[in-house]
Amino acid sequence: MDAEIISVGTELALGQVTNTNAPLLAQQLATLDITASYQVTVLDDGRQIEAAVETAWHRADLIFVCGGLGPTTDDVTLKSTARALQTTLATDQAHWAWIQQTFRQRQIDLLAENIQQARYLTGGQPLANPVGLALGSWYDHGGKVVVVLPGPPAEFKTMLMRSVLPRLVAKYGQGRRITSRTLNFLGRPESQLMDEIEAATKQFTNVTVTSYVQPSQIQVRINVYDLSKAMAKQLLDAVTAAILTVERPFYFGTGDQCTLAQVVVDQLKRRQQTITGAESLTGGLFQSTICSIPGASNVFAGGFVTYAAWAKEKLIGVDKQVVDQYGVVSSPTAAQMAEKSRQQLNADFGLAFTGVAGPEALEGQPAGTVWLGLAQKGQPVQTKELHLAPYIGRQAIRNLSVQYGLQMVYQALG
Amino acid sequence: MDAEIISVGTELALGQVTNTNAPLLAQQLATLDITASYQVTVLDDGRQIEAAVETAWHRADLIFVCGGLGPTTDDVTLKSTARALQTTLATDQAHWAWIQQTFRQRQIDLLAENIQQARYLTGGQPLANPVGLALGSWYDHGGKVVVVLPGPPAEFKTMLMRSVLPRLVAKYGQGRRITSRTLNFLGRPESQLMDEIEAATKQFTNVTVTSYVQPSQIQVRINVYDLSKAMAKQLLDAVTAAILTVERPFYFGTGDQCTLAQVVVDQLKRRQQTITGAESLTGGLFQSTICSIPGASNVFAGGFVTYAAWAKEKLIGVDKQVVDQYGVVSSPTAAQMAEKSRQQLNADFGLAFTGVAGPEALEGQPAGTVWLGLAQKGQPVQTKELHLAPYIGRQAIRNLSVQYGLQMVYQALG
Repeated sequence: MDAEIISVGTELALGQVTNTNAPLLAQQLATLDITASYQVTVLDDGRQIEAAVETAWHRADLIFVCGGLGPTTDDVTLKSTARALQTTLATDQAHWAWIQQTFRQRQIDLLAENIQQARYLTGGQPLANPVGLALGSWYDHGGKVVVVLPGPPAEFKTMLMRSVLPRLVAKYGQGRRITSRTLNFLGRPESQLMDEIEAATKQFTNVTVTSYVQPSQIQVRINVYDLSKAMAKQLLDAVTAAILTVERPFYFGTGDQCTLAQVVVDQLKRRQQTITGAESLTGGLFQSTICSIPGASNVFAGGFVTYAAWAKEKLIGVDKQVVDQYGVVSSPTAAQMAEKSRQQLNADFGLAFTGVAGPEALEGQPAGTVWLGLAQKGQPVQTKELHLAPYIGRQAIRNLSVQYGLQMVYQALG
Repeated sequence: MDAEIISVGTELALGQVTNTNAPLLAQQLATLDITASYQVTVLDDGRQIEAAVETAWHRADLIFVCGGLGPTTDDVTLKSTARALQTTLATDQAHWAWIQQTFRQRQIDLLAENIQQARYLTGGQPLANPVGLALGSWYDHGGKVVVVLPGPPAEFKTMLMRSVLPRLVAKYGQGRRITSRTLNFLGRPESQLMDEIEAATKQFTNVTVTSYVQPSQIQVRINVYDLSKAMAKQLLDAVTAAILTVERPFYFGTGDQCTLAQVVVDQLKRRQQTITGAESLTGGLFQSTICSIPGASNVFAGGFVTYAAWAKEKLIGVDKQVVDQYGVVSSPTAAQMAEKSRQQLNADFGLAFTGVAGPEALEGQPAGTVWLGLAQKGQPVQTKELHLAPYIGRQAIRNLSVQYGLQMVYQALG
């Protein structure tokens, strides 16, 4: 089923505010298999709002009009929506009495315009607003539903969750049900990953697989349709297995919120092991990423940022002759940084980063050349060279280096 | 003038991703007095995109189509836009050769679909993408302009700033001319800052002042209208002076791209001074922020991440009895971390962070309690306590701690 979201607000049109209501609403609709196929943002302008509602009425079954329900003169949403629907406005007398009383109690001057906040679409029902003044409207007419909601995110969200979604479930809950699972990958270009996944999953029907590139990972979402919980799980498991048969080396976890840092911290915690870092080009970003996970103190006590060559020698104890002979951006330097920092902190793992963040080359090596070193107690040190594309820029090179470093740890953790 | 922004992406329609491109674009258009009166989000669906472009062609003068330029089969933006405009696609052979070469160098398999990323609208011009693979398109036809841009925010922003805005200024710059200046502040709540600025600037006419809250600062933009370059500068200078008369303690720099880290690195470089860091709750985020500035190696050699108390003692040499007596989250601990790390690196400045990132309290102190320490060669150590609001969350507490630390250095630099 198709829904349309009309967001009203000059501050949205001018880009002064990012619209967080529309994605929240779209997400919630998606769980009911309702797609917000059209999302429109318009100014606080009566004729624009009216035109947008008319257009939506012709192409969508479920229409949301969000924002512009305040008492000021530029809040014209409700009037314009009523005009487009060829209806009028009704006043909820009980709510109007409550507004008057609230203002009296808080000793705020009541304006004549405040009565607007007690109005709703005639022929529909008012929607209560537990966290603000303005009512919403639910207008079910001719096989279509129009919902009007206030713009402030806290009010929008509360009313969506408490009043609107239950009504939507009651009305449309019989429709198609989607069950989803998100798998996370690193280290494969999106086009190649998706080609291989498409080939690996083509025997399945009633399944769609989509991808989404994030700065630190590629998220692959599997959707299955109209199945009982148990059947959906079975099918998702089968599709996951088919995907992992080919993409296991690049996979690191399941779930929308899953990150490599979270996975690594969780695993280290479970194994009661610890990690430290020795960072050159990443300048503390790896350690900061670990510390962004609540409870990181269980697995991380501290580490080193050694940007200059002499700091690698002085703080970590890297041999000057290794740096002189092989260079800062080299496997032997990465290995010493990893092992000597691990020893100093008496940690189970030591992860080192040395390379060229750019924009300039270093020691004749182009931006994007990175050596990772991973020391593990009782194991030989591993190193790995990355050749990241210089054009992605300094921050992306630093960020991806951290993610590939985390992936090395993830793989070592088995 | 009216512009329309069409954002393409099923992930947007499903609310999996918040659209940050459209507000950025709308903001930039607003500076040229172009209003993004219509903003539409559609699925990765050829017919929908085509219909949206056709509708936009009838009601707007300037149309942006953003997202869906990847090589996968669900990326249909360019084809559908061409259909709506009754044109075809051309291939930029030089760019196609570059893509092939890049894939060869990086030893990634090239797919036939990748040629899509070298295509643009016939009759228009390709727009270079300095940070990604897919070209954009600039299509100027029949008094209207259609601009096609890729969706990944880093690519979108770079191309908007470098290629699109200069073209828009050249084409539409003759309208109302806005000259802007952005001032950056930290440490004052937005509502208070703007109330005070409004009072301080109310004698000026032909001026608007708007604010924009960013995670690390508040940006205040002064716009003046329809003045010659010299007159505009004079008025901007006068407004700036009036604002700084009241807000000087919170000001740190001018310009849209200005950050405290950039200002601090620039000033240290100019004075040929160096800095180091000793980080507990921030876990390397301060040093990583310094290293995010190209040329940071002139002012930063390395430093410490000391999350656990014993790491503060072992790596930096903080006295155990100071930690035992005053606690980890205390002025004396912050002072020792700053001074002893400064001495170890023989740096001009040492900046220390110790505090409670949350969610749990620490040593009986709530999340958001942070001690900053700043050591400066030949000066007494300064410390400063922050009480950040716990509800802003762990990452915002860590990020703001870094910014307030940078502000301490900025103020010490005079």
